[in-house]
Amino acid sequence: MAKVKKQPRPKAETPKGFRDYFGAEVTQRAEMLRTIAGVYHRYGFDALESSAVETVEALGKFLPDVDRPNEGVFAWQEAEDEGKGDWLALRYDMTAPLARVYAQHRNDLPTPYRRYTMGPVWRNEKPGPGRFRQFYQCDADTVGTSSMAADAEICAMLADTLEAVGIARGDYLIRVNNRKVLNGILDGLMVDNETSRNLPARNIEEALNAKVSDFELVNPDDILRTIDKFDKVGAEGVVELLTTGRIDQSGAFIDGLGLSRKDASRVVRFMECRGRDNTETLQNLRELMGGPDTQLQLENGATEEGHDGIEELQAIADLLEAQGYGPDRIVIDPSVVRGLGYYTGPVFEAELTFEILDEKGRTRQFGSVAGGGRYDDLVKRFTGQAVPATGISIGVDRLLAALHAKGRISAEARGPVVVTVMDRDRMADYQAMVAELRQAGLRAEVYLGNPKNFGNQLKYADKRHSPAAVIEGADEKARGVVQIKDLILGAEIAAQATLEEWKENPSQIEVPRAELVARVREIVERGQS
Amino acid sequence: MAKVKKQPRPKAETPKGFRDYFGAEVTQRAEMLRTIAGVYHRYGFDALESSAVETVEALGKFLPDVDRPNEGVFAWQEAEDEGKGDWLALRYDMTAPLARVYAQHRNDLPTPYRRYTMGPVWRNEKPGPGRFRQFYQCDADTVGTSSMAADAEICAMLADTLEAVGIARGDYLIRVNNRKVLNGILDGLMVDNETSRNLPARNIEEALNAKVSDFELVNPDDILRTIDKFDKVGAEGVVELLTTGRIDQSGAFIDGLGLSRKDASRVVRFMECRGRDNTETLQNLRELMGGPDTQLQLENGATEEGHDGIEELQAIADLLEAQGYGPDRIVIDPSVVRGLGYYTGPVFEAELTFEILDEKGRTRQFGSVAGGGRYDDLVKRFTGQAVPATGISIGVDRLLAALHAKGRISAEARGPVVVTVMDRDRMADYQAMVAELRQAGLRAEVYLGNPKNFGNQLKYADKRHSPAAVIEGADEKARGVVQIKDLILGAEIAAQATLEEWKENPSQIEVPRAELVARVREIVERGQS
Repeated sequence: MAKVKKQPRPKAETPKGFRDYFGAEVTQRAEMLRTIAGVYHRYGFDALESSAVETVEALGKFLPDVDRPNEGVFAWQEAEDEGKGDWLALRYDMTAPLARVYAQHRNDLPTPYRRYTMGPVWRNEKPGPGRFRQFYQCDADTVGTSSMAADAEICAMLADTLEAVGIARGDYLIRVNNRKVLNGILDGLMVDNETSRNLPARNIEEALNAKVSDFELVNPDDILRTIDKFDKVGAEGVVELLTTGRIDQSGAFIDGLGLSRKDASRVVRFMECRGRDNTETLQNLRELMGGPDTQLQLENGATEEGHDGIEELQAIADLLEAQGYGPDRIVIDPSVVRGLGYYTGPVFEAELTFEILDEKGRTRQFGSVAGGGRYDDLVKRFTGQAVPATGISIGVDRLLAALHAKGRISAEARGPVVVTVMDRDRMADYQAMVAELRQAGLRAEVYLGNPKNFGNQLKYADKRHSPAAVIEGADEKARGVVQIKDLILGAEIAAQATLEEWKENPSQIEVPRAELVARVREIVERGQS
Repeated sequence: MAKVKKQPRPKAETPKGFRDYFGAEVTQRAEMLRTIAGVYHRYGFDALESSAVETVEALGKFLPDVDRPNEGVFAWQEAEDEGKGDWLALRYDMTAPLARVYAQHRNDLPTPYRRYTMGPVWRNEKPGPGRFRQFYQCDADTVGTSSMAADAEICAMLADTLEAVGIARGDYLIRVNNRKVLNGILDGLMVDNETSRNLPARNIEEALNAKVSDFELVNPDDILRTIDKFDKVGAEGVVELLTTGRIDQSGAFIDGLGLSRKDASRVVRFMECRGRDNTETLQNLRELMGGPDTQLQLENGATEEGHDGIEELQAIADLLEAQGYGPDRIVIDPSVVRGLGYYTGPVFEAELTFEILDEKGRTRQFGSVAGGGRYDDLVKRFTGQAVPATGISIGVDRLLAALHAKGRISAEARGPVVVTVMDRDRMADYQAMVAELRQAGLRAEVYLGNPKNFGNQLKYADKRHSPAAVIEGADEKARGVVQIKDLILGAEIAAQATLEEWKENPSQIEVPRAELVARVREIVERGQS
């Protein structure tokens, strides 16, 4: 066997686009996940943790004409004794694995199957500022029912969840749209143009595998992408992009999609249907679509699907109103576009409406923290049988960032009480002190570094954001007392302070050894209030 | 672009060696991790969550003479615009990433750096019964101190942790050994044999890269593997395997390692050094090793390292005794071998000592649930600077299995209260009921499947292990009452029971609608007691 070559020293770096999370970042996320799980659980959802690794086949990203799965997932081929093994990949969301889990275990699972799941997902995408290739999602889905009550419940639960983690009512808005309504509008366009169109992708697999070249005429996904620019370019900008094209800010000309101006206006009118309340919004949608069997409908070419979509929105609006979730929390809004491409019915998006300062110091709305909708063909690709499903995914890291931005949680958590080491032969005495503190529920540790330089011990306590440091030298031991340094109240400790200088500090108190726990507790509790 | 070919239907299966976790499996593990994190946190350790993906270079598994990293990790090569990208891999434990994190962030981290971490790790190994390729670890490590107080603390914390999660005192034992003592013994052998040997692997990198062929004489790792069979083959069996060989149960002859019988006996005597208490054990070790500068030492060829190891064990024993962790919980035991190959000083192993029935119905000890020790060269491969470190890793899934085996936790958790749907037009009424129940902290949901077959609704509640089902038909609505079916007390409900049959069941009560929450709470609370 070949002699192993001496390796150069490896670089101590996370792979590009990955990062580490420290201390409060980890515990605050864990606390948020626990809170969210609590709400989901109370709503009757059951926990699921599927494996992080799936076959590429099950994820539905494998293209047969390339050696390697396309960009977007982290994938590798299993080595096998003979020939080549399966391609495996890290999950890129929680929905594709849910479809696999449901198809695999459907005989053992209740119907409907209501599950929540939380954990990291991985995307093999170009990383950017604040954009990582591993991030947390926290999803809840109801599989096996086409009832709009399931969709309404998901929206209500999302509102409850946002409030439970600390987003005040009024600081968020959940907007609801329906893919079927847009389909109705688009069908109308195509009839007007006397052209046919390929069906838009109705499920994940089709959407993932679809190529622009598969669509001979205007690709509905291009229309989706265009109307998604509504916030940036406004109504007239969208009309230009849908028709003959537009000159952008840089002066470059962007080709239009070639719709007629009448069709483009109709798309924009759809997006502008939101009224003062849900009743008015639904009325606007009905007028735009045309009533069943009316002249308007024939003129518009609206399909049954468009009307179904409006009735679904009506059902959701009625259920939410009956449960007291008013349009200040959940509102029907036809301008919601994000992610619409993958869904088959209602879609939801939760936005935080308060303003923050972005990297460049400009105020902007915080934006989306959760999204979801109905995927009725989720399981079909495995079993051939359509299984209706609807769900929501919360972007946990973004939600945490929002709470930080609002000052609802602080970046730093309090460290442990540090018992300093004055005499390394009496380590057992110091360990006994921390044992007492811990038994009283206080976070504490003995300084375990080299105790020679006392300043280093205090620097350590400082770096750990310790509320207090404890000292027991030979003198204190002999007199049955300990010194407690209140590091919260006290002035910052000079990095090279000597023990003598340190002892002069007024925030230091001398107490009987027997009072150690009680006095430290006072300091810690004062620091928490 | 090529037209996408129609794919055959994908298999709905986890990749080989992976599995999904449902309901109570997930929540019980989350609860255990929370408990463990609570103990670690109280001991002053800070949370860390490093990325699941590392460069293969940082993990230290990449062999330069093969295209692909060796078995053992899941690895893939990043695609890059030009040429080939880095090899990335899923972490196989939490210790290699800690070394990378510490080396990368050492200027910002306190010294010592005390961190805990929990999460899945992945091993590209042949799966077997109960042996999965993704499993949870929960680690705590202290980096940057060579003090034995750090090692003693890790052992004490491990004992506290096991008790906190529900392992009773007496049902576990933490055994402590020291790699240096074994090195001293092995050095002695080599001197006796007038041969030289390559140094055994002292750090992860060397151990991972080492090949049997790198060692010209007896490979210390072979000796480790052989003495690890002590429990199976006994003292005489180990002596045979270390010397001239042995016929195993199947009648096959296993080659011996070629040590002299005197050397082999000395190795076995080392393993049998455990006395009635730590004092006797340490005395036995000193006698075997020979005191410094004595005739016995010269005769045995014991090195300074062996004596250092004994003094380290003495220091740990003294600290633990002072803190009240007696040998019923933590004991010095030179027969601990597992994992010894990777460590440079003290090693720890936590075993559960109660007996369980294995798959074949035989009683056996449950065995190891945690292990660790001192890795003093952890960070050196990145920075060139030696950084002492010690830590522990708990096998969370095994620990959960142990609690199940002891009946300390049950496999099934109680499901939600199910409000049935008698009239699908009154969905809002049913949603109002579950909203009331949830606001009272009770887990509840409306049946969201097709309500047509009432039996299916009851089957669903049954499958969810619901404590109660609620009914409000038109008749009940008119009279201002609801029916509550106590599913805990009540007899099992026949799968096809009609509503009429079901109503005759005595475990069903009719209560005023206003008493819904109070009466359901009674049933749920009775079911929990």
